[in-house]
Amino acid sequence: MSVARIAVVAGDGIGPEVIDQARKVLDAVLPGVEATEYDLGAARYHRTGEVLPDSVLDELRGHDAILLGAVGDPTVPPGVLERGLLLKLRFAFDQYVNLRPSRLFPGVVSPLAGVKPGEIDMIVVREGTEGLYAGAGGGLHRGTPAEIATEESLNTRHGVERVIRDAFARASRRPRRKVTLVHKTNVLTHAGSLWARTFEAVAAEHPDVATEYQHVDAAAMFLVTQPQRYDVIVTDNLFGDILTDIAAAVTGGIGMAASGCINPERAHPSMFEPVHGSAPDIAGKGVADPAAAVLSVSLLLDHLGHADAAHRVAEAVAAELAGRNSGTPLRTAEIGDRLAAAAIG
Amino acid sequence: MSVARIAVVAGDGIGPEVIDQARKVLDAVLPGVEATEYDLGAARYHRTGEVLPDSVLDELRGHDAILLGAVGDPTVPPGVLERGLLLKLRFAFDQYVNLRPSRLFPGVVSPLAGVKPGEIDMIVVREGTEGLYAGAGGGLHRGTPAEIATEESLNTRHGVERVIRDAFARASRRPRRKVTLVHKTNVLTHAGSLWARTFEAVAAEHPDVATEYQHVDAAAMFLVTQPQRYDVIVTDNLFGDILTDIAAAVTGGIGMAASGCINPERAHPSMFEPVHGSAPDIAGKGVADPAAAVLSVSLLLDHLGHADAAHRVAEAVAAELAGRNSGTPLRTAEIGDRLAAAAIG
Ligand SMILES: CC(C)[C@H](C(=O)O)[C@@H](O)C(=O)O
Ligand SMILES: CC(C)[C@H](C(=O)O)[C@@H](O)C(=O)O
Repeated sequence: MSVARIAVVAGDGIGPEVIDQARKVLDAVLPGVEATEYDLGAARYHRTGEVLPDSVLDELRGHDAILLGAVGDPTVPPGVLERGLLLKLRFAFDQYVNLRPSRLFPGVVSPLAGVKPGEIDMIVVREGTEGLYAGAGGGLHRGTPAEIATEESLNTRHGVERVIRDAFARASRRPRRKVTLVHKTNVLTHAGSLWARTFEAVAAEHPDVATEYQHVDAAAMFLVTQPQRYDVIVTDNLFGDILTDIAAAVTGGIGMAASGCINPERAHPSMFEPVHGSAPDIAGKGVADPAAAVLSVSLLLDHLGHADAAHRVAEAVAAELAGRNSGTPLRTAEIGDRLAAAAIG
Repeated sequence: MSVARIAVVAGDGIGPEVIDQARKVLDAVLPGVEATEYDLGAARYHRTGEVLPDSVLDELRGHDAILLGAVGDPTVPPGVLERGLLLKLRFAFDQYVNLRPSRLFPGVVSPLAGVKPGEIDMIVVREGTEGLYAGAGGGLHRGTPAEIATEESLNTRHGVERVIRDAFARASRRPRRKVTLVHKTNVLTHAGSLWARTFEAVAAEHPDVATEYQHVDAAAMFLVTQPQRYDVIVTDNLFGDILTDIAAAVTGGIGMAASGCINPERAHPSMFEPVHGSAPDIAGKGVADPAAAVLSVSLLLDHLGHADAAHRVAEAVAAELAGRNSGTPLRTAEIGDRLAAAAIG
């Protein structure tokens, strides 16, 4: 019997290159993984017109987790792969915890002056199945002066509470034990009130966890001026989308950022992917940095209960980054080899 | 006859202190301004329960512009002053251009490493009367496990087109002549499509203006990693709220940022205010920095057609900031005196 059944969606552009390294590392630390490749993304869309056939969705369902490289290229109309593939998976597999750690590793240069490695170490727990991502928009009179377009943010107590609970659970396991709720309660008074009341209720059950609230505009600013202050941030889907890119920017860029779309109960497969895109400009050259893809493997391992292996993979990446300062940059595959060797320990 | 009728809402906390300086400067560069003070904000709300009586709204209507300090304090429930006063004025007076310039002045320290004064010089044209700020939210089953809460983003061709036109008009008058549209077309496909199609149509009328599009998450990141690339950003109400705080953060903080809620046709009064809040912790000490309030006066003057005076006020602030590097910080009133003297020229 295999130790884990992983669906691999290498995708487009640099996706296959970084996923090759991610698999090297995964195989090294967890021998016996059964990996099945699925051809999804811009290339398949252009070739067949298909984005995510129901039969593929059903097959994915049978896996313990999905490892995704990157999908998309500039020629696919906006929304096709996002709504049809990435968001479809998040919703179909109830991946309500969109987890994005941001840590400033030694050796990585932050665009912020005077920030030292180790000082920034946060995770953003972004809600993944509600809010403005629900697809509840519409329009009338398209193409005329009378046109209107709407987008609706849908929030349920069910959805808000479970993701806040997850954030508190994660905070309880971290040394600083602090959760910051980010919303815009002063303008989005209905959804804001639901989030704030639910946050207070869950916080009351965790007297050992410190809490604070910030408006999203203030949080966006503080992520630039005082990123050290954050430990765990919990927020809605759209705010989380924006804040995690700022958090990535101040810790070295989205080239370094990993993410997990997680169903914590493991009732459905969770999905792990680097935050960066398919980067068609450097695809096929063997120069893409696999760090974010390998860090995504660390999140995957942690989710599947292999905390020790997860830790070793993250530390292998940290050590590799710390050694990068000088010399000719290594090629994608060389970095993968080193990380795999280091992670075995 | 007065040269301009200005309604002054000094507000709470440091509001009155910074507004005193703003009026000094305004009186110095535009003698004959008729100013009328209105008592609005947290203090009035606590005293009388009133936020914005209809009679006051009607009186404000008779002015050429409103100069606002800051309203609010932590004891007012979220939303009361925001929805009841600030947003009410934006909507009642059809202030559809929420203008926020961000410029890194010499003498001001950016949190970003390696960014030089003068390199960051952008304006954000934020839509001010639509989107998620429309107040179109609701809920059901409050306080029960079945609770839902919604917030709706309303976008009209009318509202989107006029603010995009304004952004292109402003870009045409700037040396770099570039407009960046920021939205999230890949997820908010309905509103995103309306914004993108309208942007393209207006762009076609301005072949001399360069254009680009960015998703809001990417823009949030690039404001940190490459703020130099922006000239004019046009975006919706909520995205603009978030992006302008990042833009303020990288140019020295919201303590330095001015804003105008503008009805470009002058069919209704426009409102000018520093982006910072009432800062109750330093109120009454005479140490608040009036720079942002005075820069707001510059925007007010420009809006009322006094471009030359507007320029002199902005340059007075720039010169004052450039001289700040060393020595004991000046007090609020001293800075005001200096700025008024410098702006007379
Ligand atoms: C591609 C897009 C749908 C996605 C999102 O908005 O969630 C991306 O920006 C991300 O953050 O994973
Ligand atoms: C106070 C609040 C309503 C306001 C907004 O969200 O627009 C503020 O954040 C701003 O940016 O002017």
